Amino acid sequence: MSANVTVLGLGSMGTALAGAFLSAGHRTTVWNRTPGKAGALVAKGAAEALDPAAAVTASELVVVCLATYGSVHEVLEPVADGLAGRTLVNLTSGTPEEARETAAWAAAHGAEYLDGGIMTTPPGIGNPEFMLLYSGERAVFDVRRPVLAALGDPVHLGADAGLASLYDTALLGLMWSTLTGWLHGAALVGADGGEKATAFTEVADRWMKAVGFFMNTYAPQVDAGTYPGDDATLDVHAAAIEHLVHASEARGIASGLPEIFRDLTRRGIEAGHGRDSWARLVELVREDGRK
Amino acid sequence: MSANVTVLGLGSMGTALAGAFLSAGHRTTVWNRTPGKAGALVAKGAAEALDPAAAVTASELVVVCLATYGSVHEVLEPVADGLAGRTLVNLTSGTPEEARETAAWAAAHGAEYLDGGIMTTPPGIGNPEFMLLYSGERAVFDVRRPVLAALGDPVHLGADAGLASLYDTALLGLMWSTLTGWLHGAALVGADGGEKATAFTEVADRWMKAVGFFMNTYAPQVDAGTYPGDDATLDVHAAAIEHLVHASEARGIASGLPEIFRDLTRRGIEAGHGRDSWARLVELVREDGRK
Ligand SMILES: NC(=O)c1ccc[n+]([C@@H]2O[C@H](COP(=O)([O-])OP(=O)(O)OC[C@H]3O[C@@H](n4cnc5c(N)ncnc54)[C@H](OP(=O)(O)O)[C@@H]3O)[C@@H](O)[C@H]2O)c1
Ligand SMILES: NC(=O)c1ccc[n+]([C@@H]2O[C@H](COP(=O)([O-])OP(=O)(O)OC[C@H]3O[C@@H](n4cnc5c(N)ncnc54)[C@H](OP(=O)(O)O)[C@@H]3O)[C@@H](O)[C@H]2O)c1
Repeated sequence: MSANVTVLGLGSMGTALAGAFLSAGHRTTVWNRTPGKAGALVAKGAAEALDPAAAVTASELVVVCLATYGSVHEVLEPVADGLAGRTLVNLTSGTPEEARETAAWAAAHGAEYLDGGIMTTPPGIGNPEFMLLYSGERAVFDVRRPVLAALGDPVHLGADAGLASLYDTALLGLMWSTLTGWLHGAALVGADGGEKATAFTEVADRWMKAVGFFMNTYAPQVDAGTYPGDDATLDVHAAAIEHLVHASEARGIASGLPEIFRDLTRRGIEAGHGRDSWARLVELVREDGRK
Repeated sequence: MSANVTVLGLGSMGTALAGAFLSAGHRTTVWNRTPGKAGALVAKGAAEALDPAAAVTASELVVVCLATYGSVHEVLEPVADGLAGRTLVNLTSGTPEEARETAAWAAAHGAEYLDGGIMTTPPGIGNPEFMLLYSGERAVFDVRRPVLAALGDPVHLGADAGLASLYDTALLGLMWSTLTGWLHGAALVGADGGEKATAFTEVADRWMKAVGFFMNTYAPQVDAGTYPGDDATLDVHAAAIEHLVHASEARGIASGLPEIFRDLTRRGIEAGHGRDSWARLVELVREDGRK
């Protein structure tokens, strides 16, 4: 089923999005503030709109992917009337607050709205292994899902338009944590005799399956608010964290991470939770900022 | 092929190790400092030794898993002569330095030595999905591998006895990073409307496959010392990290992690690497401690 779709913004991500719509056979209209970025897409069959007004009115489905929500409003405010009766899908990264404001703004102009979070980089666009997260009305999502599937696996999170940004931000935080921990590890094993990062990563890949297993063990504990330390207690972790601190110091490796783990476990143990699992620390993470 | 194997230490891990040897049909002798922990294992067919000397001489393969390397030396020094001609496999957690010292000590007493790192918790022992890392002479590993396979998948890292501890420590650091980032994310998505940690984890599970893909993209960059930012640059990450900082602050969530990511990316960008990938930050992690 071929649809009309517009992509506003031809940065590295917008270009990948438009390319995936074209590959899936959709009639794709593109626009970018700075001209000259549409060449390859036009050669692939895209229509280039001369201004945002023409771009918006070309399709029932309007996808926007610009640097910030500020730029989204800059581009769309002047052409807001043209959005009535269309679906605006905003794949720009921002905060949940910005997403909710933009949803209200779109509704006020008679447009249906989905906010989205793209959980991959441009080379991953079009690959169904990767997720694009959406929030907003389920019925709107269900109608647009077949076309959006061209970009990657569409996952609907809920009606609150802020959810995609909230999940996006939380998942990126998880990514930076993992990638920083991985860099720290690669630096550590590389320090003594020059173990390669690729060799470390081969073992790390397998280890991450076990880590995923721990996450899934601890998730119901977080929901239940009880944290039985059947497998490994904060006391046991604290002892092993000292090995990380010392091994890192001895090799001049510092990312700031070991100190965070030491501080969190110490505070958990001081609060009397030494026999609990790692999941108990969620209470410290939640409380911290409330002080 | 049934072998004789001794397990010294019946803490939660030692008990699991001995149980797995028994399940695999090996004649298993156990000993623990504090008596009264062997009951269930003896019921399963284990022999309980009355002292470390009897335990060590009962088997050609002696596995030790105590709280620290200090306790390993406390138990084994008095019975060191009995170790000659046997293989000592030390699965106690410690630093690479401790592992290398213990390897030299064992060699001085005529024993073969493997140092190990157990990459799971006691409930995972016996499951070939999980790895046990070993370092020490390859030939020694090859001989003992069939029996050690009862504990989980045996992975040999190299002849340097310190490698298992080094990898163990690096992988645990990766685990704490991931689990802390995951707790931060669960707290974040839970803050607005009470999204469940289990719901977040379902999405996080899939996302971790993408994160694994990034790790494997960046590993050769770390080895090559060149960090092309084809997919996502430090500049792009820095902008998104601000969303994490603000979304976390707005919800009173604090783990210390977002500040680390902000600091690392800022320093990377200030050093002129804004167009490079995340992998560039390994140079900051390596340099930090050398200052
Ligand atoms: N790259 C990734 O891996 C990735 C992954 C997930 C999400 N995202 C998100 O996707 C969005 C776009 O990222 P990108 O990688 O495509 O960034 P980019 O390559 O830097 O492109 C930015 C785009 O925004 C446009 N723009 C900026 N300010 C504007 C304004 N005031 N008015 C009109 N257009 C404006 C730019 O137009 P000009 O060409 O005229 O400057 C360009 O099309 C961001 O929110 C990013 O966080 C990116
Ligand atoms: N649990 C895990 O998830 C896990 C995972 C990977 C690695 N490990 C490592 O495995 C090792 C054991 O952990 P665990 O969980 O079994 O700990 P645990 O349940 O606390 O047991 C500690 C064991 O060490 C013995 N011990 C301590 N000091 C001793 C001494 N001075 N002399 C003789 N025996 C002594 C204890 O004997 P008593 O009964 O007499 O006190 C007990 O058998 C640690 O190095 C740990 O880091 C554990």
